[in-house]
Amino acid sequence: MVLRIGHRVPRDERVTTHVCLTARAFGADKVVIADAVDPQIKETVEDVVERFGGDFKVEMGPPWKTVVEEWLAAGGEVIHLTMYGMPLPALIGKIRRSERDKLIVVGSEKVPGELFKLSTYNVSVTSQPISEVSALAVFLDWLFKGSELPKRFEGGRIRIIPSDRGKNVLREPRSSSRRLKKEGFRA
Amino acid sequence: MVLRIGHRVPRDERVTTHVCLTARAFGADKVVIADAVDPQIKETVEDVVERFGGDFKVEMGPPWKTVVEEWLAAGGEVIHLTMYGMPLPALIGKIRRSERDKLIVVGSEKVPGELFKLSTYNVSVTSQPISEVSALAVFLDWLFKGSELPKRFEGGRIRIIPSDRGKNVLREPRSSSRRLKKEGFRA
Repeated sequence: MVLRIGHRVPRDERVTTHVCLTARAFGADKVVIADAVDPQIKETVEDVVERFGGDFKVEMGPPWKTVVEEWLAAGGEVIHLTMYGMPLPALIGKIRRSERDKLIVVGSEKVPGELFKLSTYNVSVTSQPISEVSALAVFLDWLFKGSELPKRFEGGRIRIIPSDRGKNVLREPRSSSRRLKKEGFRA
Repeated sequence: MVLRIGHRVPRDERVTTHVCLTARAFGADKVVIADAVDPQIKETVEDVVERFGGDFKVEMGPPWKTVVEEWLAAGGEVIHLTMYGMPLPALIGKIRRSERDKLIVVGSEKVPGELFKLSTYNVSVTSQPISEVSALAVFLDWLFKGSELPKRFEGGRIRIIPSDRGKNVLREPRSSSRRLKKEGFRA
């Protein structure tokens, strides 16, 4: 599960949407957006899930600290992605081997100091200012060793067929069952 | 070099800033933001370069097609990241082996169909809707095989010292030369 903290409405709307879509495509099952309610994001992400498949969930509003403390109390581990943390290559082996459920926390510009203390790991992707979106993507890609890249999502009405030059989309009309209609263009 | 197309002012300001910071931290030398001028982004990114080092460049305004055509004419190759493209794992070996200069193109929601045709490669990171930020990060991470993660940037006034629990920052006052002052907190 991914916990997004520090979301400001409406300033972070697009970045938080990108956090959600990245979490989904790279293999997370859910995002919790802490301390904020932004119905537009939930709608956008649920629309993607409905069209592209899978059962990714978005939850909004709970205080970040409650989410973290309950996760730890249930026996899970908390991985906070921060440029101040220990380098990803140094920690990823240990994190992969651990069988505890993982909560991955990504912040915005300001992160509460307490989070550094509560987290099981503070992990840095590059020790440079980057983006919570790229930190999350690269962390999940390393965690799953790239095996998530050809991930298939069950259900959905749209499937992208890889193409070297253009768009190749199988699309199922909303009303019918499993008939996918081919469309797209070749450049 | 990275070419960012489809930037809309001010809607995409934060996402494009994240594209620039990701490009820098993951080893690109420059971003060109096509068909748009957004001084705020240039200022933000140049401020990061000044503080954290390196010589990453940001250029704004040229038409995307001119940038692509000139790159190709000079003998370089163009790698367009799109969810419609061929899977990253299938193409990365060939792209790594090629010694041609690489222009990596990331779009926004709508991308001109002509770009699919002009590009040397259309590459997909997951075949799912994600984010140009995560697509770029994961592509560069694969291209450089993770060797960019401990990348050091020359110059700059700030250096992050990895820490398992808190912030550890070496900071050089603007006026002095190479004396870095230690600051931070331990949670």
